[in-house]
Amino acid sequence: MNEDELIQAIAALQNGTPRVLIGIGDDAAVWQPSRSHRSVISSDALVEGVHFSRDWMTPEQIGWRAMAANLSDLAAMGARPRLGTVALGVPADWTPEAVLSAYAGMTGCAHTFGLAIVGGDLVRAPVLTIAITVVGEVRPSNLKTRDGARPGNVLAVTGALGASRAGLDVAQGRARLDDALARTALQAHRTPRPRVEEGRWFAARRAVHAMMDCSDGLSTDLARLARASGAGARLERVPVAAEARAAATAQGIDPDAYALAGGEDFELLVAVERRSFERLAQQFRARFGRTLERLGTVEADERIVMVNQGREDPVARTGWDHFSQQD
Amino acid sequence: MNEDELIQAIAALQNGTPRVLIGIGDDAAVWQPSRSHRSVISSDALVEGVHFSRDWMTPEQIGWRAMAANLSDLAAMGARPRLGTVALGVPADWTPEAVLSAYAGMTGCAHTFGLAIVGGDLVRAPVLTIAITVVGEVRPSNLKTRDGARPGNVLAVTGALGASRAGLDVAQGRARLDDALARTALQAHRTPRPRVEEGRWFAARRAVHAMMDCSDGLSTDLARLARASGAGARLERVPVAAEARAAATAQGIDPDAYALAGGEDFELLVAVERRSFERLAQQFRARFGRTLERLGTVEADERIVMVNQGREDPVARTGWDHFSQQD
Repeated sequence: MNEDELIQAIAALQNGTPRVLIGIGDDAAVWQPSRSHRSVISSDALVEGVHFSRDWMTPEQIGWRAMAANLSDLAAMGARPRLGTVALGVPADWTPEAVLSAYAGMTGCAHTFGLAIVGGDLVRAPVLTIAITVVGEVRPSNLKTRDGARPGNVLAVTGALGASRAGLDVAQGRARLDDALARTALQAHRTPRPRVEEGRWFAARRAVHAMMDCSDGLSTDLARLARASGAGARLERVPVAAEARAAATAQGIDPDAYALAGGEDFELLVAVERRSFERLAQQFRARFGRTLERLGTVEADERIVMVNQGREDPVARTGWDHFSQQD
Repeated sequence: MNEDELIQAIAALQNGTPRVLIGIGDDAAVWQPSRSHRSVISSDALVEGVHFSRDWMTPEQIGWRAMAANLSDLAAMGARPRLGTVALGVPADWTPEAVLSAYAGMTGCAHTFGLAIVGGDLVRAPVLTIAITVVGEVRPSNLKTRDGARPGNVLAVTGALGASRAGLDVAQGRARLDDALARTALQAHRTPRPRVEEGRWFAARRAVHAMMDCSDGLSTDLARLARASGAGARLERVPVAAEARAAATAQGIDPDAYALAGGEDFELLVAVERRSFERLAQQFRARFGRTLERLGTVEADERIVMVNQGREDPVARTGWDHFSQQD
């Protein structure tokens, strides 16, 4: 049983309730506290030794990254961050000062993107365990989910991919990069910036039919978006971050494959009405000063393929499956 | 640094935000999604080997109890449970079937009290780690917090205390009880019922000035309520559950002290306007078929004392401090 299969079995245990509009299976759940409001809720857990290590991150960076992962789920729904809770499991070898530093990192990231930490729990645990839940709000008409992609839509991401993976490779000594690239790679891994503003901006645009983050790696998350939408995808190119290209080359890995499987970049993946894409990309550049990277198109055929020199190769789901790790 | 001190340091990191009405420090946080609504959010984490063990509980019971602890925090604010998320850390020695059983326990408890599980996260962890976040709703005028107790108020709890501790002692072989008492003690420990209906009932009554649950033990939680209200308390009696009396006596422990320190009973502690108490207690019995147990009174003097044969003895905070455990 992999992560997606177990999640489906868990989802089957739950009953529908009238005010829960989206339950288990999207980036976040959505409910309706009143007629004119939609609230979005998401939880993410990070475990020392599985998702991070103090060997290559400070407590403050660990805290920042944990909060960024949660904010990215709100960004993916087009929601404005509001408030969150933190349940922290603390081992005996973490000092209170280190715990406070981790909180300072979480708080710094939360406040940067407008979220207040309002409560939580503090317990003993064998390793540091951070479980964060965040709540955001979105206008009913602006809500974007992963199931709205239609054949012919253009697929795009908000930035080049693979920089976070490169940062992990640098931190763990698997790849040596130039100082400048090493620094930006480490930054991408340790203090990533969730695309909250970008998510809200896409949310207000009708031409955007589906949105999700690609925190588990583009190959994994694109397959999820395609399946949720009952469609497939044809990739024409992969936007590879400079850090990722250098780290992949240094290890003899194909840069496209490296970036496709990377994960934890927190870029947003969108499916956009074809005839509106060029104008949207221009507006995106004007607003954010970066390129909305075109990947390819949504296809009726439910396969995920990549065009290589005229040939269509199937794209494997080689990204991050949290639950299968360490099996 | 103990749990309360670390929580104060963490709270000091947070900024106030206009729509967060109650932040870190009560049973749950409160915010205002719109003018006429108050939402209540709370998180609780449970860790295998710290809070529970598969040696004395089934996965389903572990799940039920974890959800009950979270629902109790909503009950303590007078809120109606709405939805929740579950972040689960799963070790390699838990089968998918055992994980699903734990979810079935959580779901069973959640649905019994009207809450939908709408999402979460599933990760690898060294021991089973359950972090639940729940959201409830309450009318603005019905919200009850722990800071409203006033000198002269009557203190009371929704049931006798210590049964859960007795169940743990039976499960761990520290106390042998008659079959019937052993069964109800184990039930109190493994599948406790949060006082959700009672909490909503108190919430609608003006004579109730303050409310919280006493999941960490009456001695600890009463001290928190008193401090939040800038007051003290004078206990005249402790309502000791029959299971607790038997388990305490079997171990040569004073039954009052055993029940005061017990914890995890999930009864609600209320401070009630003195002149309304008798009528409220009668109505409570008529509605719920149980006794609203009178403990004593709120005092202006900020000590917590217990009357023993005319003498006033200070009550130590001997209950459950999650963070100090295993130090």
